Amino acid sequence: MGKTNPGRFFEDYRVGEVIAHAVPRTVAEGERALYHALYPARHALYSSDMFAQDCGLESAPLDDLAAFHVVFGKTVPDISLNAVANLGYAEGRWLAPVWPGDTLNSVSEVIGLKQNSNGKSGVVYVRTTGLNQNGEPVLEYVRWVMVRKRDLDAQAPETVIPELRTVVDPADLVIPEGLDFTGYNFALAGEPHRWGDYEIGEKIDHVDGVTLEEAEHMLATRLWQNTAKVHFDATFRPDGQRLIYGGHIISLARALSFNGLANAQMIVGLNGGAHANPAFSGLTVKAWSEVLDKAETPAPGVGALRLRLVATKDGADPFALKGEDGKYKPEVLLDLDYWALIPT
Amino acid sequence: MGKTNPGRFFEDYRVGEVIAHAVPRTVAEGERALYHALYPARHALYSSDMFAQDCGLESAPLDDLAAFHVVFGKTVPDISLNAVANLGYAEGRWLAPVWPGDTLNSVSEVIGLKQNSNGKSGVVYVRTTGLNQNGEPVLEYVRWVMVRKRDLDAQAPETVIPELRTVVDPADLVIPEGLDFTGYNFALAGEPHRWGDYEIGEKIDHVDGVTLEEAEHMLATRLWQNTAKVHFDATFRPDGQRLIYGGHIISLARALSFNGLANAQMIVGLNGGAHANPAFSGLTVKAWSEVLDKAETPAPGVGALRLRLVATKDGADPFALKGEDGKYKPEVLLDLDYWALIPT
Amino acid sequence: MGKTNPGRFFEDYRVGEVIAHAVPRTVAEGERALYHALYPARHALYSSDMFAQDCGLESAPLDDLAAFHVVFGKTVPDISLNAVANLGYAEGRWLAPVWPGDTLNSVSEVIGLKQNSNGKSGVVYVRTTGLNQNGEPVLEYVRWVMVRKRDLDAQAPETVIPELRTVVDPADLVIPEGLDFTGYNFALAGEPHRWGDYEIGEKIDHVDGVTLEEAEHMLATRLWQNTAKVHFDATFRPDGQRLIYGGHIISLARALSFNGLANAQMIVGLNGGAHANPAFSGLTVKAWSEVLDKAETPAPGVGALRLRLVATKDGADPFALKGEDGKYKPEVLLDLDYWALIPT
Repeated sequence: MGKTNPGRFFEDYRVGEVIAHAVPRTVAEGERALYHALYPARHALYSSDMFAQDCGLESAPLDDLAAFHVVFGKTVPDISLNAVANLGYAEGRWLAPVWPGDTLNSVSEVIGLKQNSNGKSGVVYVRTTGLNQNGEPVLEYVRWVMVRKRDLDAQAPETVIPELRTVVDPADLVIPEGLDFTGYNFALAGEPHRWGDYEIGEKIDHVDGVTLEEAEHMLATRLWQNTAKVHFDATFRPDGQRLIYGGHIISLARALSFNGLANAQMIVGLNGGAHANPAFSGLTVKAWSEVLDKAETPAPGVGALRLRLVATKDGADPFALKGEDGKYKPEVLLDLDYWALIPT
Repeated sequence: MGKTNPGRFFEDYRVGEVIAHAVPRTVAEGERALYHALYPARHALYSSDMFAQDCGLESAPLDDLAAFHVVFGKTVPDISLNAVANLGYAEGRWLAPVWPGDTLNSVSEVIGLKQNSNGKSGVVYVRTTGLNQNGEPVLEYVRWVMVRKRDLDAQAPETVIPELRTVVDPADLVIPEGLDFTGYNFALAGEPHRWGDYEIGEKIDHVDGVTLEEAEHMLATRLWQNTAKVHFDATFRPDGQRLIYGGHIISLARALSFNGLANAQMIVGLNGGAHANPAFSGLTVKAWSEVLDKAETPAPGVGALRLRLVATKDGADPFALKGEDGKYKPEVLLDLDYWALIPT
Repeated sequence: MGKTNPGRFFEDYRVGEVIAHAVPRTVAEGERALYHALYPARHALYSSDMFAQDCGLESAPLDDLAAFHVVFGKTVPDISLNAVANLGYAEGRWLAPVWPGDTLNSVSEVIGLKQNSNGKSGVVYVRTTGLNQNGEPVLEYVRWVMVRKRDLDAQAPETVIPELRTVVDPADLVIPEGLDFTGYNFALAGEPHRWGDYEIGEKIDHVDGVTLEEAEHMLATRLWQNTAKVHFDATFRPDGQRLIYGGHIISLARALSFNGLANAQMIVGLNGGAHANPAFSGLTVKAWSEVLDKAETPAPGVGALRLRLVATKDGADPFALKGEDGKYKPEVLLDLDYWALIPT
């Protein structure tokens, strides 16, 4: 097995190290169609070139989460092949739309390391940047994962825990060039609700549900060239179940959130996120959102909503989140905190 | 749940009302590839740009039924979210091909209303038009659905039942501009049978079968942005089954009909259709056709066949349709009546 | 059923006969995206237009195996609809890349016939050529299949067994025009191993596994317009199982071989292949490779590796192949022998 990639272990990372990930990927109209087949995605800006042009863009970009998955997928062989858990996200920003025909690469910098007290694993913090064929960054985010050690006797590195913002400052959000919602067509978009109609603290039950299928989560995860065995190989886990890529749940919940947030068109910031419980085929996923904050932007007619997006599974109570012990309820799959752009 | 779409109920419709549906959708080569992955589609005009050019078209259009599904899907949130049953189709005409890159919208006019005698629901008749980015109609059809009332005490509207033709007059069929079958290559198309080889009353058993899968019907139905819960959420029906979108069966049966009707290239008219029985994952679908009528067209080398397309499931007798009681046999899934263009 | 295709039987073939297969097919970016969704394909030359351009090509071609499947799929209705078994491949060569937008056709010449001693079936040898819209051959290969007789009393044809090379001579491999690996970026490609790093006799366990799903193998097989009933109709075989298209296993194993052979970018020769045992949904496929031979090529920086690619299923020992009786072990699904181009 000398030529295969065993993945990196905790002791293989150094703070400051920059890892250029393989494999570059050109995304085009095929990926757009597949995204619409895999998720009940209906946000008009990504569904219609005409609608996008009426909003000042050259055409419909690739869904922001598809861009995230492509950038993320490349990091898996270098960052999370031996990960025990994906612990968190922070400081995520979409920096430029991804257009059909663009080719994406990913680069990660190790920005923190902390060996666990058990000596068997540690937490690795990386800041990942996705770049297009012109070398322009299209996305950056921090994530941290718990990674096993290969050699339990390997010396613990100096602990470095990066200071991470709990929320992206609205002033730091990057509005796509030309974006203009002053002529926004609410009828075509599907709902009349605009920025001013949402109140901080408001919760929205997105009502619809989708039952998970093995073929669907595998098609999606493969499309993003995410290679983690646990998603594809039913013989890998002792229980014979394929663990569903957390990003599949993110995209599914975001698409379900159309029903109530149809005008929250573009995702521009990722403040944080937790994959609260594992997801498996056969579960039915539903979603709810909470408006956490609101902000103005300098772009014409464009406001920002900070949203909590929660995905739940069968048996969840309305707006289920955490129990009295402060821990996520077992029916909660995802708790995501993001900024979206919406017409004012 | 004030921001989510509860769907319209019977008392929400008014005759003459025009509903502009969300969300516009750009279709391209990705949708074409997915159509070929989801259905055993082999009609050469849709499979090959070269073949389509040799027939006088600029390139292979999107499959006529894919265009139908995109247009239909947009109507679901406004027309059939609270539908009990999809009762029928009439006066369907394809008015222009849909080319890769086109953006489609849908508009429906309410043309009839009839409250049921039980007072709990009523029948809504709509004429739906699909339009491309230039505002040109690409498809129109009438369908009627049974819709529940929200308020059982709501007053019954005046009954208006539209006069609908049982068959589209061949003179009203729209032949795509430039279509010319005089140089048609039967060898490449896969079968030698031309217009003159089919006789009225002739029945064709299409032989092949496809077993239905949850992942496949959901991918297809999602691709057309059809949002009806019953297709995706296994917890929605008491029996835990996901009802398969009727259009999935239409496309499947049409694709199977290649074997015997390979030259019935373009669908230009939809005379009627019944989803005779519900379809679920695990069933094996087969199809048979009957030649109902023949007509000439003004286009060079182009004739029209009026075809009955019947989809059946496991255990159906050959050419199964209706029992002695005049009702569809339980093994029959679909009875569709359409016009197709075929070389003379 | 007079209009449907019953397929050809053994007595229907004549040596020297040329069969032009239906249906031409245009392949584009949708097929590329689907290939990445269906298989864990990561070879950079097919994933990134930029990477392909850096290797002297105009853009990323369609995966070589996707081209193979499209060409192969067209032959099924004429060659293998009544086949009992797909017996072998030989003398396969990729002659030109298939670019997005190309339209492919297939033509086969019958080059051999041998009735079996039982008088019920015989072996048909065909040389199939895939052609693009300019009439340029893109692929050719020989395969032989065992086909049933319709009429057991039909006279046996004169036996003609073609002389076939057991391996394509490296001098006969066609290097895509312009291919140049002198500026090859190993970091982007995912592995540092070059031609010189592989030794004849070296074996590589590709480690990763994928569990087979009905929806996935059917989507793939349909995409290539392969119409063999046995892949789609669960009622066709007495055991109720859908036999998985052998080409699905080839593509899956090849994609898995990225892990250890990431730089074996282009497939240019098919020396032979055996579908050792049938594959069904639910099995988990893994793969291993053996370096059978090495050759130089005239293209700058480009070497060739002759590789054995073996796909196995659950329970296979490492590097499982044949038992002491010389027969394939029951856990072996595929034994493929091919030439690939790799940077020197």
